[in-house]
Amino acid sequence: MASAAVTVTRAFGMIDMACEPLILHGYWRSTASWRVRIALGLKGLEWEGKAHDLRAGDQRASDYLALNPQGFVPALEVGDDLLTQSLAIIEYLDELHPDPPLLPAEPLERAKVRAFAQVIACDIHPVQNLKVLKMLKKTGLDQAAIDAWAVQVIEQGLAACSELIAENSGPFCFGDKVTLADVLLVPQLGNARRFGARFDFGRITEIEAACAKLPAFAAARPENQPDADA
Amino acid sequence: MASAAVTVTRAFGMIDMACEPLILHGYWRSTASWRVRIALGLKGLEWEGKAHDLRAGDQRASDYLALNPQGFVPALEVGDDLLTQSLAIIEYLDELHPDPPLLPAEPLERAKVRAFAQVIACDIHPVQNLKVLKMLKKTGLDQAAIDAWAVQVIEQGLAACSELIAENSGPFCFGDKVTLADVLLVPQLGNARRFGARFDFGRITEIEAACAKLPAFAAARPENQPDADA
Repeated sequence: MASAAVTVTRAFGMIDMACEPLILHGYWRSTASWRVRIALGLKGLEWEGKAHDLRAGDQRASDYLALNPQGFVPALEVGDDLLTQSLAIIEYLDELHPDPPLLPAEPLERAKVRAFAQVIACDIHPVQNLKVLKMLKKTGLDQAAIDAWAVQVIEQGLAACSELIAENSGPFCFGDKVTLADVLLVPQLGNARRFGARFDFGRITEIEAACAKLPAFAAARPENQPDADA
Repeated sequence: MASAAVTVTRAFGMIDMACEPLILHGYWRSTASWRVRIALGLKGLEWEGKAHDLRAGDQRASDYLALNPQGFVPALEVGDDLLTQSLAIIEYLDELHPDPPLLPAEPLERAKVRAFAQVIACDIHPVQNLKVLKMLKKTGLDQAAIDAWAVQVIEQGLAACSELIAENSGPFCFGDKVTLADVLLVPQLGNARRFGARFDFGRITEIEAACAKLPAFAAARPENQPDADA
């Protein structure tokens, strides 16, 4: 390994934006919303949740589309601004509220944590999310084939995740501190469980257990949201 | 809009890592490799390219798998380290070589640029890339239906991209400086063209033309790579 000789520090000139009210538009079962809930909790931030039932098509309601033309969740209202895309939202929270940090200080280590997160955010989740599975159904694929699609994508992706952290020790993905990698991993494992995919690769299940002990991860779980099914 | 009162600055303690040789494992037609080539060019960095013909399955060759067990491109060798995932690689280059910056200084603006990039990296590209189209073929879908899938994903995604920059003026996605957003957009438009998808949404075609005038974008084009088809 190259020596990690370069560090990134972040200096904040003013912190008034830290006082803007935060409103998270989400859905209890959306894994991308789940990621943001974990990050908000890890940062100890106060936030208000607004639930949009994706099954009922609430995200296409005119008042939400007026706020967020894409009609996706999650979206974070920060004062008069609206932020979208879970990874961008989480890095925003991390830059504005750097304690505890969700990325290491060294660029190379940051790149490795981000790469792990992006295997989930780019290679796994988009190819097995509800939108794509609905598109598959429209092509005429039966439910068993659709489920097999999701399982294949999740298992291959989590095996890759496991390889990316094989040289690290725990309890978390990248050592003894929670990072963006753990924030992405835990909700993806929720999806793995839903589809019956295997995820007992390497340290993955141990990491999930370590995260489960932290209040921010527990509070963010889908079943603990006010809009969750009874 | 909230006032952008918080700025992020990056301080580098040492720059010895900047001297590590950079070897980019890529493929001329891989849009994710294309993104990294643009970023390397914008930063004015010297790099060596190693081509892997994805059509021939070169990315599964044992010597490459020994280096990168995932067998994906792009991957960037930095000394003894290997970085994967194009967005993570580009942010690494941006942190280590901050001039010219590919992200704005303010967290809110950074989040918006990253969100635009992630619409492409998470919502569009993974759902229309070669791997997924091959999976669709395996389900028995005919070529016309597969192409229609790709076109739908690209058109919906680029329309969303256009909305995200509707309030900005050009010539680039987020004003008068190239950002990560432009680095992601141009290769995605290459894919749009390949599949015959529409992309004359808002300022998209004007941004592509503005980028095309810059040497880093011209040099990174697939047809200008040594491994390109004649």
